[in-house]
Amino acid sequence: MDILFAGKPFERFRRTFEKVFPGHGMRFVDDPELMDSISWPHVIILRPGIFGEEHLSRAGNLILAQQWGAGVEGMDVDACTRHGVYACNVPSRGTGNAEGVAEIALLHMMLLGRRYKRSQEKIREGKFFTPPGSVLWKNRACVIGLGDVGHCIVERLTALGMNVVGVNRTLKNEFTQWGLEQVYPLEKLDLALRDASYVILCMALNDQTRGFADEAFFQLMKKESFLINVARGPLVDRQALEKALEEQRIAGAGMDVLWEEPAFPGDPILADPRVTVTPHIGGVTDASLEGVMHFIAANVKRVSMGLVPLSCLNCRQLSQ
Amino acid sequence: MDILFAGKPFERFRRTFEKVFPGHGMRFVDDPELMDSISWPHVIILRPGIFGEEHLSRAGNLILAQQWGAGVEGMDVDACTRHGVYACNVPSRGTGNAEGVAEIALLHMMLLGRRYKRSQEKIREGKFFTPPGSVLWKNRACVIGLGDVGHCIVERLTALGMNVVGVNRTLKNEFTQWGLEQVYPLEKLDLALRDASYVILCMALNDQTRGFADEAFFQLMKKESFLINVARGPLVDRQALEKALEEQRIAGAGMDVLWEEPAFPGDPILADPRVTVTPHIGGVTDASLEGVMHFIAANVKRVSMGLVPLSCLNCRQLSQ
Repeated sequence: MDILFAGKPFERFRRTFEKVFPGHGMRFVDDPELMDSISWPHVIILRPGIFGEEHLSRAGNLILAQQWGAGVEGMDVDACTRHGVYACNVPSRGTGNAEGVAEIALLHMMLLGRRYKRSQEKIREGKFFTPPGSVLWKNRACVIGLGDVGHCIVERLTALGMNVVGVNRTLKNEFTQWGLEQVYPLEKLDLALRDASYVILCMALNDQTRGFADEAFFQLMKKESFLINVARGPLVDRQALEKALEEQRIAGAGMDVLWEEPAFPGDPILADPRVTVTPHIGGVTDASLEGVMHFIAANVKRVSMGLVPLSCLNCRQLSQ
Repeated sequence: MDILFAGKPFERFRRTFEKVFPGHGMRFVDDPELMDSISWPHVIILRPGIFGEEHLSRAGNLILAQQWGAGVEGMDVDACTRHGVYACNVPSRGTGNAEGVAEIALLHMMLLGRRYKRSQEKIREGKFFTPPGSVLWKNRACVIGLGDVGHCIVERLTALGMNVVGVNRTLKNEFTQWGLEQVYPLEKLDLALRDASYVILCMALNDQTRGFADEAFFQLMKKESFLINVARGPLVDRQALEKALEEQRIAGAGMDVLWEEPAFPGDPILADPRVTVTPHIGGVTDASLEGVMHFIAANVKRVSMGLVPLSCLNCRQLSQ
């Protein structure tokens, strides 16, 4: 098979790919040259970005359009279907991506609960540190968005002895197996937030969820509670968060994602003692690189053998 | 019952104690005045420190000597037995103490694995952060010391999808229920350390374990691995650790405990980018204060009703 990697950043891993995709043709191109190469490959591997009719109409050899990761906001799945091309992504859970994001949520929860920033100041001052922070054990968390990431977070928090409630747009049967105390629909957000010490956002960003954590949302949170965002910056209304912090309506915020990345170093929110920030590292780890790569290699192998690929978004349509 | 709290720091919680120990006499004294008050109480509540024959010979009313916490290094249990006094501590697991220490181990593991210190520098520089760190999921940990704290750590790490091996002086049957891949005796430390990315010390400090992590120990660790100490500072030979870091024989160290506490602010180890330090906050949380207090209240109630107290170190001897 001939594999086209759309995006120069992939080239950094050329050596590794040569081992994982042995015997296949490989090219690496950046967006500007993509259209010139598109007639060549059987498989195209995509980063976040636009991929649609314009490309597909010229991609005569293409069998598989494979997203590198879970998010397919930029891929026109219907256009793939029209052109008889498999559109696939990589599941987040089980490849290290969702697991990594869940761990980053845990990291922020502990940084905030244990007052890590303050503890570091005390160490620099050579003083004892009081009062102590909070332990997660037997404490209460609310996980908003019960997809793959939410699932991994719930698993971990319940194992740490937390009492966990969930919020999701639709209520699925499988949620009853997760050890949640309760799952609320979006309309009952007030009940879900009422007693939670940690509120974790892990839903997808779309027109419905943009600015989800707004002023009304922060009003529903406990004064002693922390907001954790490990999904996408714009889920949080920045002004509403700043106001909630200023008016001490919440105790702090931990964010792996911001409104702009990388952050502007002079941004005052980075210096706020009640705020912890990591530079969008949740899902980006050695394990997820490995996990995603091997998932894709298996898919390439499947289509080369004439099999239907896994995590396929239009297989049902194509088989009709 | 008359309850003597030995140590002025207890007085900070007087209000809370009045609710938890209703209807009992209460006094708070510091070490110098302890001997003058010792003939008065039925129950004495002890902080870490010496309590022995000298006190007991004058403590005519004493029924229960109750340690505030798990560590009874300073309590002369045999002397308590001779004087017919129950000697009790508070179990670490289930009261929030061991759970809190386990969470701090987890915090340090993630701070180091995700290169937190470096990520904060990058944020201050306004730059993207690469290369990514490691996720705990599917990674390998070695927990040394399988007491209450070790048990809580193993529980959490296995729930996070880590492969965990244990090391303990004696091999107990119950270890087979903990989800460990393997438990090694001390003599097989080399096998236990060989593949571990995280090595966590959580054993008691005594003459056998002082300086346990010495030069030979660091030689057995992987180059890419991290040492985590959440037990007592002197378990680690400081010079050996410094040498291991300097010669890059290990990748870093995370410590909730140091050789001196609070640390000297100019101590270069605090500034080392490969070292994370928290100021001995593992077991000190709101939950453990609550957990310990309620355990002790239940014990006071038991002895006031003529029942044998719980977590008693000399009940068998006293009943003979």
